[in-house]
Amino acid sequence: MSPNRLEAFSDGVFAIAITLLVLDIHVPDPGATSNLAGELGSQWPSYVAYAVSFLTIGIIWINHHAMIRRLKAVDHGILVLNLLLLLCVGLLPFTTALMAAYLKEGQGDQLAAAVYGGSFLLMSVAFATLNRHILFRKVHLMAEPMDEARRRTVLARGVAGLAPYLVATVLAAISPYATLAICGAIALFYALPFASASEGAAAES
Amino acid sequence: MSPNRLEAFSDGVFAIAITLLVLDIHVPDPGATSNLAGELGSQWPSYVAYAVSFLTIGIIWINHHAMIRRLKAVDHGILVLNLLLLLCVGLLPFTTALMAAYLKEGQGDQLAAAVYGGSFLLMSVAFATLNRHILFRKVHLMAEPMDEARRRTVLARGVAGLAPYLVATVLAAISPYATLAICGAIALFYALPFASASEGAAAES
Amino acid sequence: MSPNRLEAFSDGVFAIAITLLVLDIHVPDPGATSNLAGELGSQWPSYVAYAVSFLTIGIIWINHHAMIRRLKAVDHGILVLNLLLLLCVGLLPFTTALMAAYLKEGQGDQLAAAVYGGSFLLMSVAFATLNRHILFRKVHLMAEPMDEARRRTVLARGVAGLAPYLVATVLAAISPYATLAICGAIALFYALPFASASEGAAAES
Amino acid sequence: MSPNRLEAFSDGVFAIAITLLVLDIHVPDPGATSNLAGELGSQWPSYVAYAVSFLTIGIIWINHHAMIRRLKAVDHGILVLNLLLLLCVGLLPFTTALMAAYLKEGQGDQLAAAVYGGSFLLMSVAFATLNRHILFRKVHLMAEPMDEARRRTVLARGVAGLAPYLVATVLAAISPYATLAICGAIALFYALPFASASEGAAAES
Repeated sequence: MSPNRLEAFSDGVFAIAITLLVLDIHVPDPGATSNLAGELGSQWPSYVAYAVSFLTIGIIWINHHAMIRRLKAVDHGILVLNLLLLLCVGLLPFTTALMAAYLKEGQGDQLAAAVYGGSFLLMSVAFATLNRHILFRKVHLMAEPMDEARRRTVLARGVAGLAPYLVATVLAAISPYATLAICGAIALFYALPFASASEGAAAES
Repeated sequence: MSPNRLEAFSDGVFAIAITLLVLDIHVPDPGATSNLAGELGSQWPSYVAYAVSFLTIGIIWINHHAMIRRLKAVDHGILVLNLLLLLCVGLLPFTTALMAAYLKEGQGDQLAAAVYGGSFLLMSVAFATLNRHILFRKVHLMAEPMDEARRRTVLARGVAGLAPYLVATVLAAISPYATLAICGAIALFYALPFASASEGAAAES
Repeated sequence: MSPNRLEAFSDGVFAIAITLLVLDIHVPDPGATSNLAGELGSQWPSYVAYAVSFLTIGIIWINHHAMIRRLKAVDHGILVLNLLLLLCVGLLPFTTALMAAYLKEGQGDQLAAAVYGGSFLLMSVAFATLNRHILFRKVHLMAEPMDEARRRTVLARGVAGLAPYLVATVLAAISPYATLAICGAIALFYALPFASASEGAAAES
Repeated sequence: MSPNRLEAFSDGVFAIAITLLVLDIHVPDPGATSNLAGELGSQWPSYVAYAVSFLTIGIIWINHHAMIRRLKAVDHGILVLNLLLLLCVGLLPFTTALMAAYLKEGQGDQLAAAVYGGSFLLMSVAFATLNRHILFRKVHLMAEPMDEARRRTVLARGVAGLAPYLVATVLAAISPYATLAICGAIALFYALPFASASEGAAAES
């Protein structure tokens, strides 16, 4: 299979997952609402979670392109690991909705935040695993030769990128707001201009 | 990244957002309805909001193509600004549903209309920001040279295109129907044949 | 804009609308169901409506390709008429759900069937309008010259194809089952092998 | 129509169906939940069904590519049979949700499991039918000649691949858990590295 086909299918899943996020933002029931402004305002966790997840999926999409364009062909192992990555991406509309629903609740908020941070961590692990597989086990499928030092650097950046998500997940036990803030900060960090030098990659940098 | 990849991903988000709009049109519960014609008729704000949002997203998609085809390559800054534009587009199924649910309500209707008009305004601002970034800061990435006067004209049309959405948003305080009518008129205007001379672009004209 | 871009975006809308149809098939609530077989069986209108709408959208997609591949370029008018066609396609998940929900009801069933047949009729009219626009007003954009007799034949087949949907819509006043049966028969007719000679086109034949 | 167009549309349906699966995983209502961990834990059938269906659709997508790339052109019969395959794929979000909702219930669980296994079986039959049609009736449309022995081998593998799904469906009468376990085992089997020699194809092997 050509990398183009793999990219086209993956792009579809990324685009759908990113657009399904909006289904988590609910229209208050007109019959049960006497103060729409208050209702919409109280839904702020939904808006923040939407923005953070949207940017994160968008950045993973950018990184995914950077990863796949190094290949001249894909084999069965790459296809399956890519499928596992997409499986994690596909879960994000659920974990985002969970985070938004429980952030302000007195109970369940810590668990919801841990699941939210954990889903980003899982996605990053799947990304790093696929990247490692390509960089060290499928060198013969790479479009252009890349010396080992450079490959180790790329992978090290990817592994280092897991740390903030691990911190965000663990901190959920103390403060769910901290989890959301860290995930948002990671997305903003990779969206900033200077991150472009490192391919602007949340999972890969 | 090639502009083609950026377009393919963006097209996916546009196509999904435009198709998700239909989820806002609800089938009346057979068990609770004794007059289906009346129920369907009373849902007219959903149909109007569907049509207005569908056409608006469609026109933005046409404009987006006109904007991106000027590029021979895209960089990190363009990718991130494009992601912010898509984030705004992704919100439209929610703001459209909000508008449809509250247009005929005694309370919340003005706020819902302001959010609706405001979401179009936000999308247009995101579009103009990306266009300005391309036309004035990424001239070296443009496929064909374009003199400054021409670039200023294109941008001026884009900024002028924000005014009607600003009016529509502000008028929500007086009449939510006016907001919907103006947004619909903008979409129709850009869909008309003579608009093709100006690339038929809601946000760009 | 190249026809390829138009096709890619349209394909996205077709693919999403066709896949959203499944959201109209509901899982019976386990807590409220003591006889799952009976519940699933009583939902048969949903399955039939799903199959009929799925095949119809699929055939329109095949026809759409046959129509667009005649073009070497697309202009603003074609884009807008194509957008109107997609707007009709995007409505089908709603009209399909309406049909499925009311087919067996004592009231509203005739109206729901009329809306269902009417949405297919509307889509076919939008298709024929776009086809007529291409065949008679945008001859200079066609990839290969086509003599007028041939163009008239293609259009005549398209207009003739509207008749069965008109019959299906009108018959809703007498029997909603007849509407569904006719729409299903049309889809089957165009799916049959011998229909390939006429490009297998529900709306175009 | 070129195989590329067919693949692009099919990829869209595969990508959307695979991503819609997440809509079956529900966020527990914060107002009605005093123990989020327990609620999330009790939803485990949803997670397992999500993973099994996701991998199965992903593997069918890989197989679909292997099947279509043998073609240099597609005709009406291939388009229609492919549409029937996509119709089956489009049903999977419903049958997956049904399985997840009833797996632990005292009644309906066997039927739900039979529907779940049956939907995979149906999809595999549709796949094998299309493959047989291509291999034995559309030899003239194949990109490269393939001798009959090889074609028989490919088809035999496809038919043999139906057996496990038949077993999974029949076993639903005894144990719904067995159905889910077998479907999961089939997906894992085809995801394993050594399966790549046989094109890693659930339906085709």
